[in-house]
Amino acid sequence: MNEKKHPLILITNDDGVFAKGINTLIEIALSFGEVVVFAPDVTRSGMSNAITAHNPVIYSKLYSKENLTVYSCSGTPTDCVKLANYTLFQERKPDLLLSGINHGSNASINVIYSGTMGAVLEGCANLIPSIGFSLCDHSQDADFSAAKSYIKSVIGLLLENPLPDEVCLNVNIPEGAIKGAKVCRQALGHWQEEFEPRQDKNGTTGYWLTGKFVNYEPNAEDTDDWALANGYISIVPTSVDLSNKECVNAIKNWEKTINN
Amino acid sequence: MNEKKHPLILITNDDGVFAKGINTLIEIALSFGEVVVFAPDVTRSGMSNAITAHNPVIYSKLYSKENLTVYSCSGTPTDCVKLANYTLFQERKPDLLLSGINHGSNASINVIYSGTMGAVLEGCANLIPSIGFSLCDHSQDADFSAAKSYIKSVIGLLLENPLPDEVCLNVNIPEGAIKGAKVCRQALGHWQEEFEPRQDKNGTTGYWLTGKFVNYEPNAEDTDDWALANGYISIVPTSVDLSNKECVNAIKNWEKTINN
Repeated sequence: MNEKKHPLILITNDDGVFAKGINTLIEIALSFGEVVVFAPDVTRSGMSNAITAHNPVIYSKLYSKENLTVYSCSGTPTDCVKLANYTLFQERKPDLLLSGINHGSNASINVIYSGTMGAVLEGCANLIPSIGFSLCDHSQDADFSAAKSYIKSVIGLLLENPLPDEVCLNVNIPEGAIKGAKVCRQALGHWQEEFEPRQDKNGTTGYWLTGKFVNYEPNAEDTDDWALANGYISIVPTSVDLSNKECVNAIKNWEKTINN
Repeated sequence: MNEKKHPLILITNDDGVFAKGINTLIEIALSFGEVVVFAPDVTRSGMSNAITAHNPVIYSKLYSKENLTVYSCSGTPTDCVKLANYTLFQERKPDLLLSGINHGSNASINVIYSGTMGAVLEGCANLIPSIGFSLCDHSQDADFSAAKSYIKSVIGLLLENPLPDEVCLNVNIPEGAIKGAKVCRQALGHWQEEFEPRQDKNGTTGYWLTGKFVNYEPNAEDTDDWALANGYISIVPTSVDLSNKECVNAIKNWEKTINN
């Protein structure tokens, strides 16, 4: 079977196997090839690349029909990719990993917290071409319809044009009307004023995560956050190699001081 | 007070506030300035940049003496940095964040799973100069003594020589005798054969994480894994900007196809 003509596609997410977003992605992926879903049993957002090291992970098959098999897993998104590879794909690796469609943005600094992108980085580390899709709308019944044709295009392009081994894609989709897509770099930013303190019934103060995103470079037109703020889909080539090569050269001379 | 002369240093880790590694790091940091420890109450390794989004996080002061105050927190390493910033550092930001010393390697692909490095990336995103230290020895009573003078050198160099905003340091220390330190890039690799299936007493198969690390480029002398395998400390400038700029340019022409 020609892999490009009928690819084997692994799908996961961090909103759980029953989320609307993953079911939209399954529908799109089935137009390309054979689909295996291996996704968290419940929502596990904000899990980054967390792994379950001190407990066992379990999984079960939910159903299977034609070109689609769906599994549910007790682990994190990264666990899902690892366990799918271990249990299902030792003979034939998936030709593609898709994660999402996430309910909520994973642009800019969100990439480091995202379970959706955790799964994508895990796929990439295992040399599987991998894409994460996210819609900038947190609601459970978010409308993914406008994004479908763009998602199809990006998948088609990646299947035909492999990226370097260490690079995957972080694709974010704006809410509402879409003007087009832009290939971008990640905007630099952070989250601010991040907690809401609340007393529980025993008087203990618990801190609930909240906050607002602050973009350090809101006017940089080559960034994902700018694209999204201006109605464009952002496509960011994202690397599992976190090392900054320029900086390696810039501080190479530290060795002399340290080793003296 | 001159910040370089008496810096305010935030320390955290993922092995928990009572681990031997963090107490070695506290001892070293106290020779530089004022130290605030805000670390997980128990071990939370493999948590990457996970955040606690659906439950409250709590913290409490354990003790305080001279230049040292120690807090314990129910959250992940990333939560610890966020909550410390929110509760303690709204007026004055720490001049430095140190995470570790981790019991176990965070070199190569381990950087994406590491809670130690999750905290470091969080500090970096908040524009705090940040370093993670890890020793390639998982045992609870690991011997950190040989590393102390090197750790002091690296801290001193970073305080005197700021890195670009988006760059932090991932420092790994080999077991046993140390030949010196090398500034490196991250070796590309992944984990293989990752699970041990075991039946519980009810007959359910649970999958326990295990596996072995495979380096895709074992002979690359400019990488962290090579340095460690050859007795050197590895110092990797590590970025919260995961986007690959070369690749942004290389696939810029995808826009034409997608937007047609």
